[in-house]
Amino acid sequence: MSELALAAFAAETGTHVVRAPRDRAFRAFARRFDEPAYLARLRSESVRWTARSAPDFPPLLHAIHDPPPGLFVRGDASMELLRRATVAVVGARSCSPYGGQVARMLGRELGRAGLVVVSGLARGIDGEAHRGALESGGLTVGVLGCGIDRDYPAAHRELAARIRATGLMVSEYAPGVEPAPWRFPARNRIIAGLSAATVVVEARDRSGALITADLALEEGREVFAVPGEITSALSSGTNDLLKLGATPLTGLADVLDVFGLTSMDKEAVELGSSAEEVLARLRDGPASADELARATGLDAGALASALTELELAGCAVAGGGVYRAN
Amino acid sequence: MSELALAAFAAETGTHVVRAPRDRAFRAFARRFDEPAYLARLRSESVRWTARSAPDFPPLLHAIHDPPPGLFVRGDASMELLRRATVAVVGARSCSPYGGQVARMLGRELGRAGLVVVSGLARGIDGEAHRGALESGGLTVGVLGCGIDRDYPAAHRELAARIRATGLMVSEYAPGVEPAPWRFPARNRIIAGLSAATVVVEARDRSGALITADLALEEGREVFAVPGEITSALSSGTNDLLKLGATPLTGLADVLDVFGLTSMDKEAVELGSSAEEVLARLRDGPASADELARATGLDAGALASALTELELAGCAVAGGGVYRAN
Repeated sequence: MSELALAAFAAETGTHVVRAPRDRAFRAFARRFDEPAYLARLRSESVRWTARSAPDFPPLLHAIHDPPPGLFVRGDASMELLRRATVAVVGARSCSPYGGQVARMLGRELGRAGLVVVSGLARGIDGEAHRGALESGGLTVGVLGCGIDRDYPAAHRELAARIRATGLMVSEYAPGVEPAPWRFPARNRIIAGLSAATVVVEARDRSGALITADLALEEGREVFAVPGEITSALSSGTNDLLKLGATPLTGLADVLDVFGLTSMDKEAVELGSSAEEVLARLRDGPASADELARATGLDAGALASALTELELAGCAVAGGGVYRAN
Repeated sequence: MSELALAAFAAETGTHVVRAPRDRAFRAFARRFDEPAYLARLRSESVRWTARSAPDFPPLLHAIHDPPPGLFVRGDASMELLRRATVAVVGARSCSPYGGQVARMLGRELGRAGLVVVSGLARGIDGEAHRGALESGGLTVGVLGCGIDRDYPAAHRELAARIRATGLMVSEYAPGVEPAPWRFPARNRIIAGLSAATVVVEARDRSGALITADLALEEGREVFAVPGEITSALSSGTNDLLKLGATPLTGLADVLDVFGLTSMDKEAVELGSSAEEVLARLRDGPASADELARATGLDAGALASALTELELAGCAVAGGGVYRAN
């Protein structure tokens, strides 16, 4: 039985199918399914197909209890990418500046360390994780919850193209399948399934990222949660994950440990004395420009130039009207 | 042998003593020690003394491996206070607005729930925890690292008086003993020892609050750490405690669980629609007034009045140039 027929049947009937249904409709579909023609059409759209039974199907994904019939794949990298050390970085779509900053930083550091960053191309945490990985020249994989031919969300069309230029976009859904809310939990099992470890950066209660974490835990994969302020609704899900036994992630080294790797030293940055002073204050927590002026005694011009220096050096980021150490 | 003689000897020699030293100096001191006269002088200074062997010595403190010879005590409450459900709330002296807010909130909620808040009267987290307990009409105990007659730090003289008005100040050190850095770790063992659970709200790496947590763990007491942002140096110690197995604290219920208690519902607060809008934004993380104006579209006047409403209702706090949900 052709696994591709299963995937094509799921697309045509708008259903989620991982095993051949024992019904007349599917038998009829499978009988008339023209695999060579279907594959030719995929090729014409630069889409590859890797069946669950193929030797290059990702072994970690094969090991979950309900692996998809196969993966539709676009992008410049070979499937070998998904046999490397893979880490999922996921979280809230409407993340906070803190969450966005941590996701970007993690993406960058994981990418620089040679790990493959897997995420869902969504707004917020997912997008920042992909961007961070690309920024560092690292490799990243986007997992779609819709047909492989869709760039969803549309706002991430360009990001998707950048991911495909060196990495991969994958989906269990054939071209033409529309995004639908019920497909996202199914997509999350692919993200968790492809990854040896899953990091949840920020998540509200009962959010999709927590589903990804649950699926990862069920499959016995390592799950990390990034601690956040207990007064922030966006850290409520992640802090609860910590209570449930997820490992707190405070830096790259925590993830590298899983793969028996050790962290490289951060490059030392040479900063001016005003910038050092501002950075020292930011290390104690986020602050507005007003507060920084008060704390350091710098005038507006000197403060602005110190902040620019820190942002360019990657030592501080601005967001939500406040600055934070990076 | 008089335990009071031990305490008086330690004060006179500027040493830390928990068992009778086997030397001539101590034997000579003990021989000429006039206990009734010493007790009379304590009474004249409104200081009580509870020896380690006395029936009203706190049983939890008695159970640690090096309990002090006794406690010098000032304040309106009886020693029975220290047989109730006691929770230590400790942390950084130069805390962040976030840490200060959480310590105050915890002090208030623990106090309201009828638990006794134990802390070290220090600036920052300690002070906020005491203040929160007093605010809610709860009871609190200050543990000093210097003689019982000193209000240390001086800036907390008035706070110490308020604590004594309904609660207790205690110290293992006799009147006249000066504060010294080496006494603070010893004091921390008293804080941990008196308490069934210890909460670390904010702590830098290698800080005193982590010593308190270590001592609590060694004595098999429950240790909680409040999660914080991984980009804040002030949450570095607390997040590391989480890695070492401390329980993440995200709300009062976590502590009440230790005592088999359940949380009371927070009183519902009726807010205007602008205030609700601002609060919804703050629940996603701290923001400056500028950012709040952008996010809500409120003009400066309406925003200021919404913020005042939220602060008066106890739903938001300002600090470090930013506002936070409470």
